[in-house]
Formats: sequence, structure tokens, C-alpha cells
Amino acid sequence: MTLADQVLEGNIRAAARLMRDIDDGRPQAIEELKQLYPHTGNAFIIGITGPPGAGKSTLVDQLTASFRERGKKVGVVAIDPTSPFTGGAILGDRIRMNRHSCDEGVFIRSLATRGALGGLSRSTSDVALVMDALGMEIIIIETVGVGQDEVDIVKEAHTTCVVMVPGLGDDIQAIKAGILEIGDIFVVNKADRDGADRTARELSTMLDMRHAVEGSWSPQVMKTEAQRGTGISELTDELLAHRSYFLSSGTINAFLRERTQRHFMAILRDSLLKRALSFMAKNDSLDTLVTDMNDQRIDPYSAVEVILSRMIPDAADY
Amino acid sequence: MTLADQVLEGNIRAAARLMRDIDDGRPQAIEELKQLYPHTGNAFIIGITGPPGAGKSTLVDQLTASFRERGKKVGVVAIDPTSPFTGGAILGDRIRMNRHSCDEGVFIRSLATRGALGGLSRSTSDVALVMDALGMEIIIIETVGVGQDEVDIVKEAHTTCVVMVPGLGDDIQAIKAGILEIGDIFVVNKADRDGADRTARELSTMLDMRHAVEGSWSPQVMKTEAQRGTGISELTDELLAHRSYFLSSGTINAFLRERTQRHFMAILRDSLLKRALSFMAKNDSLDTLVTDMNDQRIDPYSAVEVILSRMIPDAADY
Repeated sequence: MTLADQVLEGNIRAAARLMRDIDDGRPQAIEELKQLYPHTGNAFIIGITGPPGAGKSTLVDQLTASFRERGKKVGVVAIDPTSPFTGGAILGDRIRMNRHSCDEGVFIRSLATRGALGGLSRSTSDVALVMDALGMEIIIIETVGVGQDEVDIVKEAHTTCVVMVPGLGDDIQAIKAGILEIGDIFVVNKADRDGADRTARELSTMLDMRHAVEGSWSPQVMKTEAQRGTGISELTDELLAHRSYFLSSGTINAFLRERTQRHFMAILRDSLLKRALSFMAKNDSLDTLVTDMNDQRIDPYSAVEVILSRMIPDAADY
Repeated sequence: MTLADQVLEGNIRAAARLMRDIDDGRPQAIEELKQLYPHTGNAFIIGITGPPGAGKSTLVDQLTASFRERGKKVGVVAIDPTSPFTGGAILGDRIRMNRHSCDEGVFIRSLATRGALGGLSRSTSDVALVMDALGMEIIIIETVGVGQDEVDIVKEAHTTCVVMVPGLGDDIQAIKAGILEIGDIFVVNKADRDGADRTARELSTMLDMRHAVEGSWSPQVMKTEAQRGTGISELTDELLAHRSYFLSSGTINAFLRERTQRHFMAILRDSLLKRALSFMAKNDSLDTLVTDMNDQRIDPYSAVEVILSRMIPDAADY
């Protein structure tokens, strides 16, 4: 019985094992993913993003509990800032949501922002794919969000929830402006803090100024106190409401097509680079090239052309 | 006279034009960069990173003024969070450091975190290369920092300065842990705020706990109030002190080699993907593949293998 077969039967240990194999870049993992692919596309994927300190982890914890109460299996992919030296995730599964640790209906996975060969968005979609195949009905992707990486990750989600918090300083206005456009639902968390109402009002005003298309989804600003669980049930309802809109409005078709293409491109990018690396390793050419570049005998642009012309003989044709 | 020649003569308009050409992905821009490459490697590159709201822009503005007072030409590369819809930078050069706008010794460039074909770190190093060739003696790269992208950008810098601020909330501990390892100098900005001394003490304690290698650089925690200019001169001294250490300790050799290799790999990654895109465009294969994947007739992993085997005929060899 393959790992993929076991995942499809709902075997959590097999899923965890497969995710490790993916992380380690084992070729066999790709074969397992190929087997899983036709069985995916059933989960409702929710993206949670916002600046550090907004209380996203606590909110995700509460949402997980809320979906569990409604009988749904929940997968969580938490993107943690990485230590660039140790390579591991800082927060880690370890300290995340201990209260769900005995619940077979919850699967939590932390991803470190390490980059390397596979980009973070690539890893995220692979992990989400495994969770989907495992039978998780809700998949929550949590990310600290301002960069392009985060925007790419959020594109994996059917519904994106942007979490803000009162009084995070001057740059926040700028972040808001960027993030307004990716949010389907906005949350002002820590709503008991000073300035919560103002932050919510400002957000609403900014959202109202956007050009609304007739019949399109109009994002609401919700208030929560994740620590106490206040506003969580309402947020869960709103998430499901957005899902219904998404499914009924036909928006989902273009979304799925775009996502497939992005997923394909990410795999293509990785595979190309991997091929080039093996090519250079086989020819022992990387070290020599780096030395030549360092001594300014060749510039990196020309060096790339050299490698490409050797690796893809008729490259000039396209 | 080529654009590259003009840049080497210190022509600021030519440099701006070349940077736009790079952004637009014009093939000619690569030729110009090739010409510039042998004339670079002279600038002192400083990375400034830290969470949103830490006052990095103001600090960079003050550092620019401080280096100008010392007679140095200063280039600034500001990485701004992007609006994923409009594609433009949010803060923009427009509102950045107006007071330097008439100073020919200051060159400011904002980069949007848009990703696209060229990664952000690729664009950053290209822009830094042009500034270096233009004769900028100090290049400051400013980035909102927690993700892998930011870490990669910071690797471009000889000296990395991490800016913290008192009271940014719970997740900050986690960010600190990741960021401790990339900082050569730490700054607690907004040092007039409550908790500044505590933040500085905590940072110092955490830095002390790191295993210090004999004779290696030991990062200091400095306090600034960028708004008023307090502590800026001391920070400038410390930045230059780190530079001296860097040059005299021999650390720079391994650094340059790594940077060259990283730069090369980034260009290689872009070029490979560009080739693959033209290949698929020529064969009209992308749309068909996406449809097939969407209908689950083929999985994306197998689809990538199809393209690779067509594009690189003897790919199986390596």
C-alpha cells in the first residue's frame, strides 16, 4: 500500500510522513503527490494574513475550535518566520494550539520560510494538497503578511481574511493600502484595545472607496477578541458566507484555472533549476564559474548564457 | 555612447533610465549590466531591516544626511510593500525623503515587492550594481523584514542593521529570534518611548547568549530617535566600524564568493523560466496543459515532466 493510498484512507501518520518526504525533496514524494492529485479540490481553503502582533495564531486556534464544533475536520498550515541559520521554524508546531493535539480531526503543520529550491508558495500548495486528500474539509493557511511571498500564499485560498489590530504604528497605513485589495473579510482583532473602533471605521471607509462591481462580494469589517473567543462564531459564519458566494457566483472557475497555472509554474521553476544544478554538478562548472566571476573575468549574465547554451542546445530557437 | 558609459560617468538620468529598462525586462539592459559589472564592487552596502512601524524610513533618511555630511555619495534602495492589484510601490519615491531631492549626491530608488519573473533579491542586486557603477559610495537597502525574501536581500549587504521598536506586541519575540542572527548592529528606534530600555536590555541579553567566536564581531545595541536625529552620528560610526572589521578580518572573501554565486543562481533561475515560457508560447502548450490539469486529466508534476523532456531532450542524462 503506497503512502498516497494510506493518506486517502485518512491516515494522519502517513500524511505527516509524506509531508516530511516532500520537505526533504525525495523523488518518491512527487509520485505520491501525482496519485493524490485527482482526489483533491474538496477542501475549503481559508487564508489568514496580517502584520506581526495582530494575534493571528490565537485567532486561527479559535477558528479551528469553531469549525470543529460544527463537525468539520480542520487542517492548519502555519507559515512561521524562519531563523536563517538553523533553518527551522521559530514558533513551530510544538507550541501551537496544544489543546487540539489529541484531536484526530485537526492536522497542524508549520512551514518555515526558508526558500531554498522550492519556494514557500510551492510548499504551501503541496501541503494543502495532502491535507485535502487526507479529508480535511477546512484548510486554514496562516501567514505573517506583507511581502510577495505572502500574497502568493494567500492566492491559494478561496477566502482571504485580513487581520488588523489597533495602534501598530505609522507604516500600517501603507500596509493597509496593499492589503485592502486581497481581503475578502477584514478583522480588527484585540477589539478591546483603545482605537479598535477607529481602526474598524477607517478600514470600512477605505473599503467603501473602492469601486464596487454590481453583484460582487462586499467585504465586511468584523471585530474579534480572539483571546476570549468573542466574535469568532460570527467570523465563522462570514467565512462560510463568502464560500457560498464564491461557489454560486462562478468566480471559482477563473480562480481554479489561475491557481492550477501558478502551481504548474512553481513546479516548473523548481524542476528547471534542479536540472541546471545537476548539469553543473556533472560538469563541475559552478565552482570554476564563480571563481571567474569573482575575479571579474566574466559577468554573471554572460555566465548564465554559457550554461544555458550548453544545457539547452537549441535554446536560441525560442 | 551607451547607457552604461553614461552611468560610469556619473550620469544620474542614465542610471534611472537603465533601472527602468531593467524593470521592463528589456534585453538591452542585460548588455548594459554586463558592461558595468567589471566597474563595481566599490560601494559599502548597508542593509536596514525590521518590522513595520519601526521607523526605518526616517532612520534611513537621517543616515543618508549623516553620510552626506561626511562627504559620501549615497544610494538608497527602498523595498516597499506592493499593492498586488496595481503593481506599484505604495510608499514610492514620491514621498520618500523629499529633502534630498535636489541633492545630486543622493540617488533613491523604490522597488515594489512584486515578484513576477525576476525575484526581488535579483532586482535589488541589479539596482545596487547600477548605483555602485554610478559612483555611490554608500548604498542603503531598506526592507520590511521577516520573510525569506528579506533575508535574501539582507545578504546583499556588507553590514546589516536590524531596527526594533519598543512595544510591538507578542509575535516580536519570535521575530527577534530569527533576526538576531542576521544583524551586525541592532537599533532600538523611538528610544523615547516607554519600554525602550527594556527592549534594548532584552536584545543585549539575547545577543550575549549567542556563542561568540573569539575575535569575531560582537553586535552592539544602539538607541536612536530618528525623528529628532538623536543617536544617528553614533550609528554612522558603528556602521563604519563594522565595515573596517569586515575588510580587515578577511570575512569579505567568503562573503563575496557567496554573493556572486547567489547572484548567478538568481539570474539562472529567471533565464530558465523565461526560456520555458517562450518554449511553451511557441508550442502553444501552456493553455492546453492548464485545461488538462484543471480537468484532472494530468497532474501538474507530470505536466512539468512533459515540458522538460520536450525542451531539454537529453534531460534524463542529468
